[in-house]
Amino acid sequence: MNPLVLGGLLAALAGIVLSTLMDGNSLGVLIGPSSFVLVFLGSVGAAVVSFDLADIKRAPGALLRAFKGSAEDNDATITTLVSMAEVARREGLLALEKRVEEIDDPFLAQGLQLLADGVDGDSVHEMLEIDIASLDERHRSMISLFESLGAYAPTFGMMGTVIGLINMLGNLSDPSQLGLGMSLALLTTLYGVLFANLLYLPIASRLKRLNAQELAGRDLALDAMLAIQDGTSPRRLVDRLEAFLPVGQRVGYSARMEGPAPVAEPVATEAA
Amino acid sequence: MNPLVLGGLLAALAGIVLSTLMDGNSLGVLIGPSSFVLVFLGSVGAAVVSFDLADIKRAPGALLRAFKGSAEDNDATITTLVSMAEVARREGLLALEKRVEEIDDPFLAQGLQLLADGVDGDSVHEMLEIDIASLDERHRSMISLFESLGAYAPTFGMMGTVIGLINMLGNLSDPSQLGLGMSLALLTTLYGVLFANLLYLPIASRLKRLNAQELAGRDLALDAMLAIQDGTSPRRLVDRLEAFLPVGQRVGYSARMEGPAPVAEPVATEAA
Amino acid sequence: MNPLVLGGLLAALAGIVLSTLMDGNSLGVLIGPSSFVLVFLGSVGAAVVSFDLADIKRAPGALLRAFKGSAEDNDATITTLVSMAEVARREGLLALEKRVEEIDDPFLAQGLQLLADGVDGDSVHEMLEIDIASLDERHRSMISLFESLGAYAPTFGMMGTVIGLINMLGNLSDPSQLGLGMSLALLTTLYGVLFANLLYLPIASRLKRLNAQELAGRDLALDAMLAIQDGTSPRRLVDRLEAFLPVGQRVGYSARMEGPAPVAEPVATEAA
Amino acid sequence: MNPLVLGGLLAALAGIVLSTLMDGNSLGVLIGPSSFVLVFLGSVGAAVVSFDLADIKRAPGALLRAFKGSAEDNDATITTLVSMAEVARREGLLALEKRVEEIDDPFLAQGLQLLADGVDGDSVHEMLEIDIASLDERHRSMISLFESLGAYAPTFGMMGTVIGLINMLGNLSDPSQLGLGMSLALLTTLYGVLFANLLYLPIASRLKRLNAQELAGRDLALDAMLAIQDGTSPRRLVDRLEAFLPVGQRVGYSARMEGPAPVAEPVATEAA
Amino acid sequence: MNPLVLGGLLAALAGIVLSTLMDGNSLGVLIGPSSFVLVFLGSVGAAVVSFDLADIKRAPGALLRAFKGSAEDNDATITTLVSMAEVARREGLLALEKRVEEIDDPFLAQGLQLLADGVDGDSVHEMLEIDIASLDERHRSMISLFESLGAYAPTFGMMGTVIGLINMLGNLSDPSQLGLGMSLALLTTLYGVLFANLLYLPIASRLKRLNAQELAGRDLALDAMLAIQDGTSPRRLVDRLEAFLPVGQRVGYSARMEGPAPVAEPVATEAA
Repeated sequence: MNPLVLGGLLAALAGIVLSTLMDGNSLGVLIGPSSFVLVFLGSVGAAVVSFDLADIKRAPGALLRAFKGSAEDNDATITTLVSMAEVARREGLLALEKRVEEIDDPFLAQGLQLLADGVDGDSVHEMLEIDIASLDERHRSMISLFESLGAYAPTFGMMGTVIGLINMLGNLSDPSQLGLGMSLALLTTLYGVLFANLLYLPIASRLKRLNAQELAGRDLALDAMLAIQDGTSPRRLVDRLEAFLPVGQRVGYSARMEGPAPVAEPVATEAA
Repeated sequence: MNPLVLGGLLAALAGIVLSTLMDGNSLGVLIGPSSFVLVFLGSVGAAVVSFDLADIKRAPGALLRAFKGSAEDNDATITTLVSMAEVARREGLLALEKRVEEIDDPFLAQGLQLLADGVDGDSVHEMLEIDIASLDERHRSMISLFESLGAYAPTFGMMGTVIGLINMLGNLSDPSQLGLGMSLALLTTLYGVLFANLLYLPIASRLKRLNAQELAGRDLALDAMLAIQDGTSPRRLVDRLEAFLPVGQRVGYSARMEGPAPVAEPVATEAA
Repeated sequence: MNPLVLGGLLAALAGIVLSTLMDGNSLGVLIGPSSFVLVFLGSVGAAVVSFDLADIKRAPGALLRAFKGSAEDNDATITTLVSMAEVARREGLLALEKRVEEIDDPFLAQGLQLLADGVDGDSVHEMLEIDIASLDERHRSMISLFESLGAYAPTFGMMGTVIGLINMLGNLSDPSQLGLGMSLALLTTLYGVLFANLLYLPIASRLKRLNAQELAGRDLALDAMLAIQDGTSPRRLVDRLEAFLPVGQRVGYSARMEGPAPVAEPVATEAA
Repeated sequence: MNPLVLGGLLAALAGIVLSTLMDGNSLGVLIGPSSFVLVFLGSVGAAVVSFDLADIKRAPGALLRAFKGSAEDNDATITTLVSMAEVARREGLLALEKRVEEIDDPFLAQGLQLLADGVDGDSVHEMLEIDIASLDERHRSMISLFESLGAYAPTFGMMGTVIGLINMLGNLSDPSQLGLGMSLALLTTLYGVLFANLLYLPIASRLKRLNAQELAGRDLALDAMLAIQDGTSPRRLVDRLEAFLPVGQRVGYSARMEGPAPVAEPVATEAA
Repeated sequence: MNPLVLGGLLAALAGIVLSTLMDGNSLGVLIGPSSFVLVFLGSVGAAVVSFDLADIKRAPGALLRAFKGSAEDNDATITTLVSMAEVARREGLLALEKRVEEIDDPFLAQGLQLLADGVDGDSVHEMLEIDIASLDERHRSMISLFESLGAYAPTFGMMGTVIGLINMLGNLSDPSQLGLGMSLALLTTLYGVLFANLLYLPIASRLKRLNAQELAGRDLALDAMLAIQDGTSPRRLVDRLEAFLPVGQRVGYSARMEGPAPVAEPVATEAA
């Protein structure tokens, strides 16, 4: 699990727990199974109405991915691509075929296979573009699923509070229960806001971020593969691709090509 | 009825019912015909002011469509289009004419008829584009109709609550009625939020989704028909069209052409 | 008056009245001249600060137009344009001059006059485009004026409530007046929300809709007039223009040209 | 001072005063120097953090301009430009030099000077475009400054109310002060909403409007100056420029050129 | 520290303090370590879940930069660029190499080095564009980080208030503690709103502004460097670049080139 995600969640929870204890308040009264049931079923139910089965099936994977995912390593991708450019230059595009198997990232593998097959540049461009666009489309569905959940959760929380208040106000015969009823009613509001702001919305933001990074990585790779097909020299390719990296990571051709050609890890296991 | 829509609605309702019972609250007090009347007439009335008769007539159909509709099957559309490409290749564009009748989807039928009639590519493109644009326009009206309803419902709910409070506060002579009056007043807020979040807004989201899918399917079909007119080989067409499908559904030319040429179901019965 | 607008307003008002009576509440307490004065003067005053005299002078007309306006009849416009194409074809563009007087729609009349005058296509296009753009601009001012009113009304309603509460709370000596004061204070909130959601915002939506339809009608007419200048055959023009209509209204050239050439009603009397 | 701005403000204030008096409430309790101090210092302080010194220095000018400014007179600008076209046609572009001094609008003067200097059309276009863009940029800063103020004011008002409530609730020993404390607390909310909706936001809207008009006027002038350089005939120029005016103001070449050539007033004294 | 930022913060704080004292309220009750803990940990924790380690590491730098940063000096940049154009004209592009060291701004230095190296214009353009785009990307991450914090802070403040109310209402046995409990509960709302409106949101606005200025400065520099490569005369370059300045700063070629060629300060130390 990504330590940042874990750390962030723990910090926010710690803030809630600590401040409650510092005020001499009790955490026990914050446990409300009925509030959990309403906010969870309500938000998930309303979201299910809006999305397709395929989206909903992919949601747990996206959740996992948001918890595990971290920025992809464009650095390694660049090294792989430059070493492939080296191969293509020395041995021809056909020679890429036997290197494709060493590559874990399915997008790179597919693209390099197309180069090895001698498919013309426009077709390579078009096919990989459609691939990138449909990846983006699938990711956006997930992002908007979690944003929907984040919008529905506080609304259902508020509904629970209103239901509680209606019951309490319609039955004022026992004043001693007044405070307790209102306390219980408010709990659902709390759960709705907590679900949205500690889970749904940060997850949606994180998925948005991961998607932007993955798309940028694929654009970079697509750009590089077309350059390889055009016979761009590896040195020039390094200059071009390193412009995408922060200054500190720009090590130049020689540093990159030292030792055995590394193999890029997958740009990101597409779980969503 | 689409099991997802039904399931989602039932889950959200179950959340409300369960949590109310778990808290020992009563569901009976949540029945309020006056609240229903105000929220329903108010939201529908305000929406009627903003839309045309044609839009309003199409609303029940759109509602039905949202409840029944599911993702269209691009897979079958691709098979149909590829088999048409096969026919066009072997027997010429004219031969498409006798196949058009077998096709249920009116958009495909219209497009293939234009090909068979020998209309030039630019005109085919232009006419089908206008068709797609006006479908989109009609769908967007429906989406914005349900979004309007979703925006007006909580506002009218809130108005009902304010009216209830004004009456209650102006008549404090009988304190025993205070709680009851306020309880009744709050019920309208609940109905407004329920209508919006359980019905209007999820329906609007679902229609938006169905529209996006239908447009994508039509763009794919338009693309394919222009390729057929240009004499693209069926094998190449398969490669091109399957790039739009998730990897798992990409079966290739041979698998697709096995057995008798299937006929695509309508891309989506345009009910809205 | 457009029966839809009237019906919608009556339905929403009926919802408010019915639900108030069903709850045994009184409508009399909802009459508050002071609330009306604050919300009306406040929202109009704040809007006047933001807009020009010309906009404000056009506002009553726009209001009327929203109440009366209904979807323009593109069908009749198409028939007129096709009959003009027929004339132009048989007797030349010059012959359009004597037909221009029969046409009520000033936009069509102006465009056809330009054709008859032999103005070149680019100039016709440019001049009519500027005309369309400035119509759009004027309509948008009106839309944003009513949207402003819809945004200011609830805010001034809320101000009135706060002022009422401040007075009530600063003068708690007579507790019997407490409820009455609060009731009166809340009334202004009700008026603000009512003005916005029953009047200003639905009017703004309706004007937006009418504008979209009128612009679409003018784009269609402009398109057709340029085609007439280019000598497009009336039959082809029918095919092209009917693509903009719903399938049910596509009657084809012969049906359209039966009987005496009809004359289009104005695309919409531009009152705003 | 623009009578519309003054009238609008007075109408909104009258609405507040009248409705307060009609309800038998007192205006005296609405005077709260502490509320004024908090809302004013808070909103201005928070805005100062976000903007540059240059922006803040220009704010009073923009305020003044919003109060005085009214729609610029494109009509006069058109007459001036047409008479310049006349001069350029009869006496050559060089002859514009001696007319430049008569022109008050610095933008027109600068542009005509460039024409007289024989600068080529592309450079004139580029330089005046940059001028227009940087004017737009400066105006947008002002608009967003007043929008920021309008967003911060109610927030600081609400903070004041919360601070007042915290003090009141923490000190319930003297119940007779309860109402008064809460009344005072609410006053800051009122000031925040008043500042935003009577001053900051309408001013921002008005500046937005003035900017749009000034930009449109400059685009028209730029367009005309390039046409003058191209040697467009004055009669054609009138036709072209009058298309930007409402139909009622289109008087044609002869009417415009009667009497001595008028001189355009400044397109708008750029005070912001 | 930028006096504007400091002054703005102090003014807003002064507004809060002054108005509290003017109302005879106490500042002491506004000190709430538990509220601070909840709002700070909650907002930071939720933001950490959404962002990458790299972003979070850059946040303190961005905070500092927002406090110190002021509008960059395009004026000095222009003088530097014009003097470089002078050098390039008299001594050739190669001569720029020895001047590069005198330049503090890394972006200018990198660009001029590329010119000296004889890299072709398209490559210079492409490489510097990528540089500008990735700077923009990094800045936008920071802006959206502070906007997230500004959105989460009031939500966590509200959660703290709800938790406080739940505890208070569930434990009404000691009525004397009622006011105190509610007072404490409200404090967290105050902290949430204060953090957002005095710190997070103004910082985000300021960073947005600084980013816009820095990008504009780099676009200007890129434009100028390409013009230098094309051999544009220094006088023409001054005219072109000064169009970006307010009229008052346009001093012309001679004034700029008087005395020894000044050296631009860094366009802005990129700390974020």
